[in-house]
Amino acid sequence: MVTTELRVDPITGRTVAVDLGPFKRRDDFDLEPVRIEDAPAQCPLCEGRESDAGPEILAWREGGPANMPGWSVRVVPNRHPMLKIEGRLDVKGDGLLETRDGLGAHEVIVETPVHDQPLHMLEPDRLWRVFWAWRTRVQDLKRDSRFVSVVAFKNHGRAAGARLDHAHSQLTAYPLIPPALADKLRGAARHLTKTGRCIFCDLIAQELKDTRRIVCDQDAILAMAPFASRLPFETWLMPRDHSPKFEDATDATLEILATTFKSVMARIDWALERPAYNLVLHTAPLSGDADSAFHWHLEILPRVTRYSGLEWGSGVYRNPVSPEEAAQVLRSRQP
Amino acid sequence: MVTTELRVDPITGRTVAVDLGPFKRRDDFDLEPVRIEDAPAQCPLCEGRESDAGPEILAWREGGPANMPGWSVRVVPNRHPMLKIEGRLDVKGDGLLETRDGLGAHEVIVETPVHDQPLHMLEPDRLWRVFWAWRTRVQDLKRDSRFVSVVAFKNHGRAAGARLDHAHSQLTAYPLIPPALADKLRGAARHLTKTGRCIFCDLIAQELKDTRRIVCDQDAILAMAPFASRLPFETWLMPRDHSPKFEDATDATLEILATTFKSVMARIDWALERPAYNLVLHTAPLSGDADSAFHWHLEILPRVTRYSGLEWGSGVYRNPVSPEEAAQVLRSRQP
Repeated sequence: MVTTELRVDPITGRTVAVDLGPFKRRDDFDLEPVRIEDAPAQCPLCEGRESDAGPEILAWREGGPANMPGWSVRVVPNRHPMLKIEGRLDVKGDGLLETRDGLGAHEVIVETPVHDQPLHMLEPDRLWRVFWAWRTRVQDLKRDSRFVSVVAFKNHGRAAGARLDHAHSQLTAYPLIPPALADKLRGAARHLTKTGRCIFCDLIAQELKDTRRIVCDQDAILAMAPFASRLPFETWLMPRDHSPKFEDATDATLEILATTFKSVMARIDWALERPAYNLVLHTAPLSGDADSAFHWHLEILPRVTRYSGLEWGSGVYRNPVSPEEAAQVLRSRQP
Repeated sequence: MVTTELRVDPITGRTVAVDLGPFKRRDDFDLEPVRIEDAPAQCPLCEGRESDAGPEILAWREGGPANMPGWSVRVVPNRHPMLKIEGRLDVKGDGLLETRDGLGAHEVIVETPVHDQPLHMLEPDRLWRVFWAWRTRVQDLKRDSRFVSVVAFKNHGRAAGARLDHAHSQLTAYPLIPPALADKLRGAARHLTKTGRCIFCDLIAQELKDTRRIVCDQDAILAMAPFASRLPFETWLMPRDHSPKFEDATDATLEILATTFKSVMARIDWALERPAYNLVLHTAPLSGDADSAFHWHLEILPRVTRYSGLEWGSGVYRNPVSPEEAAQVLRSRQP
């Protein structure tokens, strides 16, 4: 019988139920290997259809004028934005009910001009340009003093919520700290108050000593399965040294992030048969005093399980694969 | 262009991004109509295979001995429990990392002896027996002084996390308050302190006056689309009058709950083409002083959208259908 352990995430304090024991059979998972269909005639993200995707905010171009072919990464406004640049900051109330405008920025990073190239299959010298685009956009959005924080994310595959097959990620900027980031900042601030140190740095030190949850530690970017992983094969990439802000990362760091990401994804593809996945980038607020406490990191979230009534009802994730087991499986496959 | 509004849930304070405007086309959804396959020879929940499901804790029987055919609802231990009755309450620490045993109860309510009868298709006089079983089990688990709270839930369809087609729900009892319930209790307690009143009662009064989010209000159980619905067609059923504890509900109330649930689900089946769904029952802690603040309710959570990087990264749900629109669609279909 499977033994389940309740684990507390050291950063957010969130509880996760982790099943211990051997790696569950793959048929326990909802495996829907991501297949990229042939480019439909109307794919708005393909090269040659730049006007459908919208006016470019940023592009990595070998040449050619803006909004024409010749780019390798291109940033455009989201056509169905959750957040818009126009709006008011104030809260409207009606008795118990409160609303505010969806003020912010919501951009799409088209990761490749080619329809059927998943991000993690790009060559490292192309892949890193996506991170370059994220960084450049954060640096720019930071100049708008209304914005307090940014989150970049990616949906790969329908099971991860992707609506378009063509590889893309999204960047959101907020006039406040969104809850998922706030949970981390709160925990990090508490640790800083208590110890004077960054909780991520302390965690990295403890994990490197323990070794069981380390996926790869050969370089400036560490890959590890978090102790309270919510999902099977959840993996976090983070700079080994204290680094609050993603927008301050050097080109060299982003290049290492790209090769580490590619290497980890190749192993996850092997272990889970090309699963759908989400990426989430969490970085310190754009201004303010969280720099001593926070440490940017990229979450890789493979999507082979479903959010069920257990999660809705209790708020506790149940993870059928322990991070120790997942890290061992991923380490066993040298790229 | 769709306008998105950020809404604050009056109970939990959670933020949801609601797209306003007309009911989105159904092809925006991941519609996977739930189909019940023919009973496999090995379905452990079918009548006649009682020993596979496990020893019964409770059953509604017309006759016959325990653990034999002749039941209409049957409660057994979960074969893969997240929580177990044996275990210790204390927290084990290792540096930054904390764990505790998964102490608690985790039971399965087999809702019908017949393999291909979904819960919401049962006749009301059968359906209410499922709620009777939930109530009876909560009353019993309450006698174990280690348990502080219970949550009942259901997964209908693979997209909602169901592993078995045969209709069943689950009941969990905890030695603590799980986070999703704690979020509600915290908000309810805050409102009680501020106003001296139950926030659910105040919300019901405001919603009945507003009427736009009411799905049906003809009886002692009210059905409404919550203002900050996380999911398209999310609907909450709750007693119109102040009722903290589900286990104190009368037979008559549970019968009305059954007919209201069946009526609402018939309309949701019509609107969303027999979607997968989750149910969550939240009720006041088993003991303690939350009775003035809390008010039990049953959440119906249709699963036609995916949890994406936006939700993971920001903690803000994006709901493509406003609750006003959903309630209007559901009201338009009289059962």
